[in-house]
Amino acid sequence: MAIYNHKIQYYETDRMGITHHSNYIRIMEEARSDFLEQVGYSYECMEAEGLVSPVLSVVAHFKKSSTYGDTLQVETHMTEMTPIRFTISYVMTSGGSVVCTGESTHCFLDKEGRPVVLKKSCPQIYELFGRLIKEKY
Amino acid sequence: MAIYNHKIQYYETDRMGITHHSNYIRIMEEARSDFLEQVGYSYECMEAEGLVSPVLSVVAHFKKSSTYGDTLQVETHMTEMTPIRFTISYVMTSGGSVVCTGESTHCFLDKEGRPVVLKKSCPQIYELFGRLIKEKY
Amino acid sequence: MAIYNHKIQYYETDRMGITHHSNYIRIMEEARSDFLEQVGYSYECMEAEGLVSPVLSVVAHFKKSSTYGDTLQVETHMTEMTPIRFTISYVMTSGGSVVCTGESTHCFLDKEGRPVVLKKSCPQIYELFGRLIKEKY
Amino acid sequence: MAIYNHKIQYYETDRMGITHHSNYIRIMEEARSDFLEQVGYSYECMEAEGLVSPVLSVVAHFKKSSTYGDTLQVETHMTEMTPIRFTISYVMTSGGSVVCTGESTHCFLDKEGRPVVLKKSCPQIYELFGRLIKEKY
Repeated sequence: MAIYNHKIQYYETDRMGITHHSNYIRIMEEARSDFLEQVGYSYECMEAEGLVSPVLSVVAHFKKSSTYGDTLQVETHMTEMTPIRFTISYVMTSGGSVVCTGESTHCFLDKEGRPVVLKKSCPQIYELFGRLIKEKY
Repeated sequence: MAIYNHKIQYYETDRMGITHHSNYIRIMEEARSDFLEQVGYSYECMEAEGLVSPVLSVVAHFKKSSTYGDTLQVETHMTEMTPIRFTISYVMTSGGSVVCTGESTHCFLDKEGRPVVLKKSCPQIYELFGRLIKEKY
Repeated sequence: MAIYNHKIQYYETDRMGITHHSNYIRIMEEARSDFLEQVGYSYECMEAEGLVSPVLSVVAHFKKSSTYGDTLQVETHMTEMTPIRFTISYVMTSGGSVVCTGESTHCFLDKEGRPVVLKKSCPQIYELFGRLIKEKY
Repeated sequence: MAIYNHKIQYYETDRMGITHHSNYIRIMEEARSDFLEQVGYSYECMEAEGLVSPVLSVVAHFKKSSTYGDTLQVETHMTEMTPIRFTISYVMTSGGSVVCTGESTHCFLDKEGRPVVLKKSCPQIYELFGRLIKEKY
């Protein structure tokens, strides 16, 4: 599986001289979006089906700083799934060292904002996600 | 008229130690939103009428840097109006010195993305904006 | 203790129509900065002493969406302290409902990037933080 | 010359469903950084010489909206140079249509914040920039 690369931009740094911590949450979204596209599922398709997939929680652990010009390599895995939510985890490295690890949990909601039981409403996505967890994609 | 105050946040600085220039464009939006609310018109109301008001252009001149902890005082004026577009200008000062001046131009589009002739579709907004220009609000 | 207010800006929303989740991490920083200023300690003073205080981890739980025009009221508490790190927690509400809860953990580093034992290097900060935990400020 | 590609991220959109206009200013910075790296000059090198290069002004014209999933192709040119400042211009297209055009003007400052006469202090950069203008790189 291809790793997602993110090159740190000048506007992502702060006056401590390093990447501002909030940007790692955005890089997690970039990597997740790329991951879902690679495994054959994309936000566009989800939205076409009238579903939205809000973030329920995020956690990030900052191990080492990065800064302008560094390229982060992000490894993304689907790690957990219940009938209504799923969790994706991230490991970001730069020059071989771990910079940040994180996790985000998501659900699916229909147009009225009601939780969707994935197995029932979208069995093909449910199966895809289940397969990703088993295969440790 | 009340001035809009924006306190520079840590996440708005970059590794040069100063407010990243892109954030002044966002502060212009904050001040514009506050200005339109003060004069009795708000984005919410506009959206309720099914209109959107995209930005056509922005320009900003950076005169002096600002940084974390500084409070910018933003003066906002409506400076130009044609049947389909209007221009708002901004002067941001901190401690009495001008930090940034800018201008943004906007139009109104209906739900199909077609330009709206304000005088015809929304005469009350057209009159409000006209009055703001004359009164140099 | 005064609550920190943050009015959601247009640029903080995403195409789901709600505040993008990454912005809550930034709002936590705003509230933390305001909290530390209120209790008599500020980042400026910390930086004057040659220390930086990077974020070690953040976690956020999104309970309810918010959007442009909403005002979040953020309650901030210092909840944990060890000789080298401290944890601050946040509860954000809008219209009486909890929108987001979160937590951030921080340490102090000297100019060379070495961890600082707060009790030894800055006893007055150590005492202040200790008092905040006891008093459930 | 290679074109700089930027894929619009979800966090770059707003509740109008399109890329928030402030992000084009950031994409201009990304493209400028990539351009300067390609022509053999980078911010890192500049900073090593103890210079900073703040932005003096930016202007952007928004011609067509873009959104999540679109890839912008950015063409960057150096268009003007005086002894103390230089201007870079940008054309961003998506699917063959122009989305945004812009321009940014910059100067060089030394560590004390004084303007640097490039021809005198850094003749090699001055020559590089002069060549870029002639060659319409």
